[in-house]
Amino acid sequence: MALIVQKYGGTSMGDVDRIRRVAVRVVSAVEQGHRVAVVVSAMAGETDALAALAQEAGGEQPNPREYDVLLSTGEQKTIALLAMAIQRLGCPARSFTGAQIGMRTDAAHTRARIQSIATQRILDTLDQGTVAVIAGFQGIDDEGNLTTLGRGGSDTSAVAVAAALQADVCEIHTDVRGVYTADPNLVPGARKLDRISYEEMLEMASLGAKVLQIRSVKFAMHYDVPIHVRSTFETSEGTWVTREEDVMEGLVVSGVTYNRNEGKIRVRGLKDQPGVSARLFTPISDAGIVVDMILQNVGHDGTTDITFTVPKADWKRALQLAEQAGREIGATGVVGDDKIAKVSIVGLGMKDHAGVASKMFQVLADNSVNIQMISTSEIKISVVIDEKYLELAVRALHEAFVENGAHAPKPE
Amino acid sequence: MALIVQKYGGTSMGDVDRIRRVAVRVVSAVEQGHRVAVVVSAMAGETDALAALAQEAGGEQPNPREYDVLLSTGEQKTIALLAMAIQRLGCPARSFTGAQIGMRTDAAHTRARIQSIATQRILDTLDQGTVAVIAGFQGIDDEGNLTTLGRGGSDTSAVAVAAALQADVCEIHTDVRGVYTADPNLVPGARKLDRISYEEMLEMASLGAKVLQIRSVKFAMHYDVPIHVRSTFETSEGTWVTREEDVMEGLVVSGVTYNRNEGKIRVRGLKDQPGVSARLFTPISDAGIVVDMILQNVGHDGTTDITFTVPKADWKRALQLAEQAGREIGATGVVGDDKIAKVSIVGLGMKDHAGVASKMFQVLADNSVNIQMISTSEIKISVVIDEKYLELAVRALHEAFVENGAHAPKPE
Repeated sequence: MALIVQKYGGTSMGDVDRIRRVAVRVVSAVEQGHRVAVVVSAMAGETDALAALAQEAGGEQPNPREYDVLLSTGEQKTIALLAMAIQRLGCPARSFTGAQIGMRTDAAHTRARIQSIATQRILDTLDQGTVAVIAGFQGIDDEGNLTTLGRGGSDTSAVAVAAALQADVCEIHTDVRGVYTADPNLVPGARKLDRISYEEMLEMASLGAKVLQIRSVKFAMHYDVPIHVRSTFETSEGTWVTREEDVMEGLVVSGVTYNRNEGKIRVRGLKDQPGVSARLFTPISDAGIVVDMILQNVGHDGTTDITFTVPKADWKRALQLAEQAGREIGATGVVGDDKIAKVSIVGLGMKDHAGVASKMFQVLADNSVNIQMISTSEIKISVVIDEKYLELAVRALHEAFVENGAHAPKPE
Repeated sequence: MALIVQKYGGTSMGDVDRIRRVAVRVVSAVEQGHRVAVVVSAMAGETDALAALAQEAGGEQPNPREYDVLLSTGEQKTIALLAMAIQRLGCPARSFTGAQIGMRTDAAHTRARIQSIATQRILDTLDQGTVAVIAGFQGIDDEGNLTTLGRGGSDTSAVAVAAALQADVCEIHTDVRGVYTADPNLVPGARKLDRISYEEMLEMASLGAKVLQIRSVKFAMHYDVPIHVRSTFETSEGTWVTREEDVMEGLVVSGVTYNRNEGKIRVRGLKDQPGVSARLFTPISDAGIVVDMILQNVGHDGTTDITFTVPKADWKRALQLAEQAGREIGATGVVGDDKIAKVSIVGLGMKDHAGVASKMFQVLADNSVNIQMISTSEIKISVVIDEKYLELAVRALHEAFVENGAHAPKPE
């Protein structure tokens, strides 16, 4: 008999019909003898609808405290409806808001961070054979104000609950079958992974795979909570996200991801002297814009070019700021390009497998794809390319590394 | 500088546009130098929509605890939206759920009763010059479960908050201008009352005037909270509901009310012996049906007829139960009639004014309206008549007692 935390997202809770189907799944786990806590999101579209109401009432920047009061009604609705639907199947269930389970967060409204969970009430409920249905995405601060965790926060709530309960697994029930080696919509040969390490999942989530929210993976890694990503609509196994040691065998490259939501800015002809970078990036960071990749080329004439990427939504503003800073620090030109894409390969096997980068560059060259920027970590290599080659590059890399790819050696 | 509690109902909070108009009214009271706490209902239609969702998810009888979790999201939405809208006008505001102001109730889900309110947080907020925007209709029980007060509960919340804060007035902002001497839709000569006593208002609310919820009037009377019923959409004075002593002068009859939501059942030819009534009414009360008027006629032949009224919604079921009981206790017949109406006149002046009843009967007789049942209290007389004479009777009584009515003597 295991203690299972199940999380269902907005699509799974999209309407009462779907909520009733979720109830059937929950009860089925109970009937298998497990103790089950369920963490749910708001109905798909509800959070957007509430956010629109907030702007209508409060203007462009509605008060963050009140925004959280408003948004947390979304999950309060779904916990009640799911608890009712489970009870209707003859299985006891009880809903809990964030406040009711003492989901303590800091006071950073709209993007609060979980600090602690008072587990006693949940454990008492589970010990009585009752399903605990818990509102994701929301908590309370030290003064009892309602807070929300930001988009995708329900994944984090679920993992946090699983960690606090020392659950055997945190099941993320979603609208895909698991974590794929690449976006199946783009790559026909993409296949579901059986297991993947936290580290790989983190890289893949950061790089554009949307199946899990980054913060939740970090949380799971930190507290060593096994995550099982699986489909709400099927009973088959999905993908387990676990410790590296538990991923017994795998490809050198576990996945190919992409991100077309960034724009590039190149500042040319800077004097290669201390303080130049700071004067370029300080106004951008002051504007709240997060810079992703940064590349610096030192030319033969003693000047240097700096190229960096920012989210597409911030690209225009960042370009203006870079032009202004460029004038002040004597740049010879500032050029922007928002027709770019970032393509990455991720895999634990890269750590002790030489030649992965050069093979990646060769594959791209064979397909006449020019590389504009490169960024690497221990377990991933990302390249920025012209957006129009995105599909070609992803398919070629997937074919080379996954479909015909080398397997990493089994650990002793 | 007064401490004012304002309550806005579902129609006043019907959409964001209206919520913004409410915000203007609230801020105007603040600008006049008052400390203002606002109690709000859910948007009109929201509670019904949530109740429908509950039945879809939980069946005909959704779990009451979860039903309250679901329904209390309605007011949580409106407090956030109103607080935002007030802030947008440059006035500080802060929302509070029932839980956040310690609105303690008993554990009777869907019809909980208020037990206490922890006022410190509201008072601190008001003392900072901030408007407190409080969710009506909801509370928490001793274990922190969410509860709701039942339909119209926001009026009661508002009066309870006003009582706890020892407010100078509880303003009920609604879609009518105040309490009328009769339904203006039915009686062209109906006029707004300036003042009415708690006792009269209670009778009028019980008898069908929909402007205030009965429980809230009882609460106000018990804690001596002056209520000011006024229009959300106008600035003119409405009707003050206060202690009898403060209603300085008035008509013998303050109002004519009606109710067409009852059905009548007559059980004929019962033996006039002990226990018969009990055997008739016990099954009806066991079925949760509330009997309003009861009339018993003893005939010359030693048998008795019992006639009673029940809510129209329960009338068919009550008729079946009466037929069954009738057979067991030897009734000679059971007859139902749901084409009836109850018409009442209410007025403190009746207490020491003779001849009101006989004048009422005379007015009805002059209009050829037959009286089927009569029920009286110290300050009201109700009659049951054929539904088709309803308008005629209300207009005639209003003309006789209000338009051309005698004034009660001023108290010394």
